[in-house]
Amino acid sequence: MTEENKYNAPQEVKDLNIINAIELEDFAKEIVPHGGFDYMAGGSGDEFTLRRNVSAFNQKGILPRMAADVEFPDTQTKIFGHDLKVPFIMAPIAAHGLAHESKEAGTAKGISEFGGTIMSISAYSGASFEEIEEGLAGNPRWFQIYMSKDDDLNKNILDEAKADGASAIILTADATVSGNRDRDTRNEFVYPFGMPIVSRYLTGSGENMSLNNIYGQSKQKIDLKDIQFIKQYSGLPVFLKGVQTPEDAMAAIAVGVDGIWVSNHGGRQLDGAPASFEVLEEIAEVVAGRVPIVFDSGIRRGEHIFKALASGADIVAIGRPVLFSLALGGWKGVKSVFEYFENDLKRVMQLAGTQTITDVKNARLKDLK
Amino acid sequence: MTEENKYNAPQEVKDLNIINAIELEDFAKEIVPHGGFDYMAGGSGDEFTLRRNVSAFNQKGILPRMAADVEFPDTQTKIFGHDLKVPFIMAPIAAHGLAHESKEAGTAKGISEFGGTIMSISAYSGASFEEIEEGLAGNPRWFQIYMSKDDDLNKNILDEAKADGASAIILTADATVSGNRDRDTRNEFVYPFGMPIVSRYLTGSGENMSLNNIYGQSKQKIDLKDIQFIKQYSGLPVFLKGVQTPEDAMAAIAVGVDGIWVSNHGGRQLDGAPASFEVLEEIAEVVAGRVPIVFDSGIRRGEHIFKALASGADIVAIGRPVLFSLALGGWKGVKSVFEYFENDLKRVMQLAGTQTITDVKNARLKDLK
Amino acid sequence: MTEENKYNAPQEVKDLNIINAIELEDFAKEIVPHGGFDYMAGGSGDEFTLRRNVSAFNQKGILPRMAADVEFPDTQTKIFGHDLKVPFIMAPIAAHGLAHESKEAGTAKGISEFGGTIMSISAYSGASFEEIEEGLAGNPRWFQIYMSKDDDLNKNILDEAKADGASAIILTADATVSGNRDRDTRNEFVYPFGMPIVSRYLTGSGENMSLNNIYGQSKQKIDLKDIQFIKQYSGLPVFLKGVQTPEDAMAAIAVGVDGIWVSNHGGRQLDGAPASFEVLEEIAEVVAGRVPIVFDSGIRRGEHIFKALASGADIVAIGRPVLFSLALGGWKGVKSVFEYFENDLKRVMQLAGTQTITDVKNARLKDLK
Amino acid sequence: MTEENKYNAPQEVKDLNIINAIELEDFAKEIVPHGGFDYMAGGSGDEFTLRRNVSAFNQKGILPRMAADVEFPDTQTKIFGHDLKVPFIMAPIAAHGLAHESKEAGTAKGISEFGGTIMSISAYSGASFEEIEEGLAGNPRWFQIYMSKDDDLNKNILDEAKADGASAIILTADATVSGNRDRDTRNEFVYPFGMPIVSRYLTGSGENMSLNNIYGQSKQKIDLKDIQFIKQYSGLPVFLKGVQTPEDAMAAIAVGVDGIWVSNHGGRQLDGAPASFEVLEEIAEVVAGRVPIVFDSGIRRGEHIFKALASGADIVAIGRPVLFSLALGGWKGVKSVFEYFENDLKRVMQLAGTQTITDVKNARLKDLK
Repeated sequence: MTEENKYNAPQEVKDLNIINAIELEDFAKEIVPHGGFDYMAGGSGDEFTLRRNVSAFNQKGILPRMAADVEFPDTQTKIFGHDLKVPFIMAPIAAHGLAHESKEAGTAKGISEFGGTIMSISAYSGASFEEIEEGLAGNPRWFQIYMSKDDDLNKNILDEAKADGASAIILTADATVSGNRDRDTRNEFVYPFGMPIVSRYLTGSGENMSLNNIYGQSKQKIDLKDIQFIKQYSGLPVFLKGVQTPEDAMAAIAVGVDGIWVSNHGGRQLDGAPASFEVLEEIAEVVAGRVPIVFDSGIRRGEHIFKALASGADIVAIGRPVLFSLALGGWKGVKSVFEYFENDLKRVMQLAGTQTITDVKNARLKDLK
Repeated sequence: MTEENKYNAPQEVKDLNIINAIELEDFAKEIVPHGGFDYMAGGSGDEFTLRRNVSAFNQKGILPRMAADVEFPDTQTKIFGHDLKVPFIMAPIAAHGLAHESKEAGTAKGISEFGGTIMSISAYSGASFEEIEEGLAGNPRWFQIYMSKDDDLNKNILDEAKADGASAIILTADATVSGNRDRDTRNEFVYPFGMPIVSRYLTGSGENMSLNNIYGQSKQKIDLKDIQFIKQYSGLPVFLKGVQTPEDAMAAIAVGVDGIWVSNHGGRQLDGAPASFEVLEEIAEVVAGRVPIVFDSGIRRGEHIFKALASGADIVAIGRPVLFSLALGGWKGVKSVFEYFENDLKRVMQLAGTQTITDVKNARLKDLK
Repeated sequence: MTEENKYNAPQEVKDLNIINAIELEDFAKEIVPHGGFDYMAGGSGDEFTLRRNVSAFNQKGILPRMAADVEFPDTQTKIFGHDLKVPFIMAPIAAHGLAHESKEAGTAKGISEFGGTIMSISAYSGASFEEIEEGLAGNPRWFQIYMSKDDDLNKNILDEAKADGASAIILTADATVSGNRDRDTRNEFVYPFGMPIVSRYLTGSGENMSLNNIYGQSKQKIDLKDIQFIKQYSGLPVFLKGVQTPEDAMAAIAVGVDGIWVSNHGGRQLDGAPASFEVLEEIAEVVAGRVPIVFDSGIRRGEHIFKALASGADIVAIGRPVLFSLALGGWKGVKSVFEYFENDLKRVMQLAGTQTITDVKNARLKDLK
Repeated sequence: MTEENKYNAPQEVKDLNIINAIELEDFAKEIVPHGGFDYMAGGSGDEFTLRRNVSAFNQKGILPRMAADVEFPDTQTKIFGHDLKVPFIMAPIAAHGLAHESKEAGTAKGISEFGGTIMSISAYSGASFEEIEEGLAGNPRWFQIYMSKDDDLNKNILDEAKADGASAIILTADATVSGNRDRDTRNEFVYPFGMPIVSRYLTGSGENMSLNNIYGQSKQKIDLKDIQFIKQYSGLPVFLKGVQTPEDAMAAIAVGVDGIWVSNHGGRQLDGAPASFEVLEEIAEVVAGRVPIVFDSGIRRGEHIFKALASGADIVAIGRPVLFSLALGGWKGVKSVFEYFENDLKRVMQLAGTQTITDVKNARLKDLK
C-alpha cells in the first residue's frame, strides 16, 4: 500500500462518556475511513438480518418483579473455570486495525484494564499473538479459528494459539464463504493490512486482499469431525459458532462439543436468516444445560443482555459496540464501553428485581405482539 | 443556584381550550426549559416502553353497543370510601415545579377546583405538605412514598403524610434506582429546587442533585415486608405501585396489600418492559376483585380510560397530560385537562353504549391484529 | 351568514376521468373550503379507526380462481325487491352542500343518471325532499333518520319520508352524540346552511350550528323499541345502522329489524373501534342470511367491494368517494365515480374468476399475516 | 408512430457489474422512457401485491445448517427432460422492446450465452419467433400463450410455437383482462410497436394499442378444457400459470395438467391478492410432487430462490430483474444478471449448508413473526 492511499485509522486514546451504545456507530462513522466503517457496520444482502438482530429483542418484554429485595446486583458468573465479573465477553472480530491504529492490542488492553472478562482473538486478526499479549497482559482469551484447507497448517495455528494461552477454541462454521456484502462490493473494499495468523495459508499476507478472496482460501468443507479434530489435537474446549438450529446444537453435542455459540455472525453472512435472538430459546431448550451457550449478534443495551440470559444464554459476546468504542477512544474507549454495559446491566437487574445472574436466567419474559 | 442559570418555569395561569391531550406535549415543549421538559416527557433507554404505553391501546378495539338506551352517562365511582365524580385521579409525579412556578400547589388547586377526584402527592414533591394544602384545600389525597434506608425517617415521613390527611399510601417499588434516561444524562439534568419531604434523608436538599443521586440515596431493598410495615405503622390502606405481573399481584395480596397499582412508571424506569396496558388484563384476572386496581402509563384519550377500565382497572391515574397542562395554564390548566378528560370519557361512554362505570367495566373489547 | 364569510362551494359540473378513488380526496382538498373539506374527510380522535377502515382490507387476500370460465361478469343483485345493477349504493351522508352547490340534488341526479342503485337520504340533508327529487327523478331511495327527542316530530318526519317515496328507513344508532372530531373543533366548524328536514326540532335551521349542537338536540336514548316504533309507524323495512357486534345484530333481529347495517360511521364517531371490515365476518356468521347486511366504511377499490361481499355483506354503501366526486364534477362527477366502481368491480370479478355476485359471496379469502 | 414521438429504447450492450438486483430498477428508470418504465415496473391498484411479493419472503427465515460438509454447491436440476445448470429460468414477459431495441432477441441471446436454462417466450412478444431464434440459437424455450377467442387461430399459434421448438406451453390464466394499472392509465400508455405472434387476432398490429385493448381482444372464458385442448393439439406438456390456490392446482391436475405455475403475474393483475410466496407452500402440499411447480413473482435475491425451493417450488422464473438488465446492457446485461443469480444462489447454498438442490428443497424454514 503506497503512502498516498494509506488507510488512516483513528489514533486517539481517551475515556468515553457513553450515553448509549447505539449512537457509538454514528460517532465512529465520522472518524473511521469510509471503506473500513462500512466493513465494520455493514451486513449482508438487504441487511434484514442485521437490523432484525437488534429489533427482535422487542419481541419479548422483561417483566420486572416488584418488592424483590434486591440491592447491589451481582453480575458475576463462571464459564469453563473462568470467574467473570460480568456475563459478557469480547466477541471474535477480524481486523480491529480498521477501527484504531492500536489494532487488537488496543482492544486487549481495554479488556485487561476492565478485567474479569474474556478476549476472543480472531484468526483474522491484524495483530500477532505477541502484539495482542502486550495489551492483554495475561488475561483470559479464547481463540477463534478460521480453518485452512491444510490440516497441518491448522495444527500449526492451534499450536500457536495454545502457546499463547487460549483456554478455548471457537470454530467458526457460519463463514465458509463471505456473505453478500453489498457495501464492501460497492466500495471494492480490501484489507489495508495483513493478517499474521492466517497468512500462512493465504497467497499473500491478507493486505490488499478482499474478504471474498480470504474466505475463499480458507476451508469450506467444515463438518462435525472438525470439532473432534480440534478438540483432540488442542486438548481445549471447543465451541461451535454460528449455531441457529436445535438440530445443529444436538448434533454438535453428540460429537462432544464443549459449548454452543448461537450467532448469525452479526447479520454479516446469510441474510434472510432469523435474528439470533429469535432462535436462542428453542436451542437452549434442547441443549438443556449440558454445555454452556454463548450468544452474540445484536447486543446494544443492558436490557438485551438480560433478555438473552433469560432466554437461555450463559454469557453474551459483544462486537460492534466495542469496535466502535475502540475507534473513538482506543483502549480507554474499550474499557469505557465494558463499564457502560456493566452499569447498564446492573441497573436493569435492580429494576427487574434480580439479584444474581441465576435470577436473571430464571426470569420470565413476555411474548409481545 | 445562581441568578444567571435560574430555572425559569412557566408562570401563566389561564383556562386551556384543549382539543386533544397529545398535542399538549408539543405546546409545553415551547415554554418549558429544555432540561425540565426532557425530564418530564422522556423515558428510559430506547423509549420503546414509553411509546408502547400509548400505542398498545390500539391492540384492543372498543365494540360500541347500539340502541343501548344511554343518555347522560354517569362517570361516578368509589374507591376506599371516596366518592369520585370521575374514574380518574392525579398520578404521583415528582417535581411539578419543573412545569410551573406554582409547583404541586398549582396542580392541587386545579384538582380541588375540579373536585371529586384525588391528588397523589409524591415524596419527591418540590412543594411542602403545607404549600400543597393551600391548593388542595381539604380535598382527598394519597401519599406516594419513596422510602429512606432509615426506617425512623420513614416513620417520620409517614407521620407527616398522615397528619396532612393522606387516606392511602402508595409504595413505589419500580424505582429503586433511576431508569436509564438518555435525555437527562445528555442534558446533565439536575433538579433546580429542593424536595422538602425527602430532604431529611438526602445529603442536600435535592437542589442541584441528579435523579440518579436522589434515587441512590433512597431505599433499594424494598420487599413485601415494607407493605406490612407501612400498613401497620400508618394504619392506612397501602398500594403496591409498579406491578406488572400476576405473580407480584398475588404475592402482595398474600401479605395484605390494599390495592394493586399497575404501572411501568410511564416508561421511565425499565425500558424493554411491556406496555402497562399489555399486562393489565392478566393481572386483573388473578386479582379477581379482591382489592382495587389503579392503572397508569399512557392515558391520553377518553378511549384509553375506557379500555383500561374494560380490561380490569377500577380507576386510572393520569400523569404527563396534567403536568403539561400545569405548564400551559397553571391551576386553571389542570382544571381544564380534568374537564377535558371528563367530557371525553362521557362522549366515549355514550357512543359505546355504556351508561355507568359498571357498564364500562363489563364491556367486551376486541383483540386487534 | 354574511356575504363576506359565505361558504364558496364548488360549482363545476363535468365528467371525471377517475384513475383511482383514493386520490379524489387530494383533488377535492384543493377546491373545497378548508372547514368543509376537513368535516368531510376527517374522523374522530386519533383517526385510528378512520385509517384502519381502509387498511384493514389488507388483512385478507383475494384468492383468484384460474380457468373459471368467466366472461362479462354480472354485477346485478337484489335487495328488498329492488333490482340493482351493482351491489353498491350511496351511503347516507349529511350536508352534501359542503362539497357542491347543487347539494344532495346533485348527488341524486348523478345516481339517477347512473341508474340501478339506491340513494340514501340523510335527515341532515341540506336540501329538502323536493329539491332532491329534482335530481333523483323517481329512482329508489332510503331515508336515514336522526331521531328527535319528540316522537310526534319523528312521526312527522317519517310521514314526509314515506310521502317522498322512501322504501326503507335507516335508523342511525352510532351517532347519538358527535364523535370527538379534532379537526372540526380546531376549525370551529359550523354548517354554512340549514337542514330543512330536521330543522323542526332544532333551535335554529342548522345554519351556523356546530355538529355537537345539532347532535345534542337530536335523540340520545335510542333503544331497540325505536326499531319497532319506526317499523310499525312507517310500515317500511328498517335497518339498524352502526352495528359492530354479533350481540347487537342478534338483538336487533330478535325485535324484528329488517336489515343490519355494519358501519362505524366512516371512523367519524368512536375512535379506537375496530375497522368496520374487521367485524363484518363474525356478524355475518350470526345473521346467517336471515336479513340482508349492508356494509360501509372504507370502500375505495373494487377489491374492497369484493372482500366485503365475500365476508358476508349483501351490498355495500360508498360515502366519501362520492362526495369528493360531487365536489369535483357535480352530478356528472357522481355518475363518473359510480361508473368507475362498476368497471373496477367487474374487472376484479373477472380476474378473481367469479361470474356473479353469488360467486363473489362464496369466494374464499385468505387471512394475511 | 411518427418520428417525433418515437419510443427511444436503450441500445447499449455491455456487461453489468451487478451489486444487487434491486437497484437495477433505479438504474433502468434513468434510461428507459417513462411510459415504458412504468409499464415494466408497475403493478395494479395500490401495488399492495406488487410490494408484498418481495416483502413476504421475510415471513420465513432460512435456518443455516452448520458443519454440513458443503463445498462448491451444485445448482443443477432437471425439468421435463431439460438439464438445467441453475434452478431458475426466464419468466414470460411481454414487449421486451420497451427495455431495449434488441427486443426479445436480446434477452434470448443473453440466455443462450449463459446456457443451461430456459427462455419463456410470451405470445405478446414484440419480436417474431424468427427474430428470437437469432438470439436463442437452439436453446430450450417454452411458449406462453394468450389465447384468441378463435380456436383456429389458437391452433395456428400453437403450430408455429411447436415449429419454433417450444418444449412446453404455458397457459396464462390470470390475465383474461388487464389489471387495474393506475400508472399506465395515467400515462395513457400504448405499445410503441406491434406484436407479431398475436396480431392475427387483433384489430391492428398491437402498435399504439393499450394493454386493455389487447387483453380485451384475447380470450376471457378460459377454463380447464383449454388445458386439455392445448395438450391434445400440441402434444406438449402444459403449465397452468397463475395458480394461487390448492383448489385450482388439484383441479388442473385432475384434467391432466403437466405443471403448476404459481404466480400472481408479478402483482400486475389482481391487487389485494396474497404474495405469490404466501400461497406457495399450501399449493405444494396438495401437489405433492405429482407435477413440477414453477414459481414466480418477487424473486430479487439468491435467498428468495432458496426460500421458494424450500417451500415447494421446483424451479423459479425471474422477470423484472432480467428486463431491467436487458435495458442496462442488452444481451450482455441479461447474461450478467443470470450469472449474478447463479453466484448469489451458490453463496446462499454454501452458507445454508446445502450441497444440492435436493438439499435446498428439504431445508426447513422458520416462520417469523
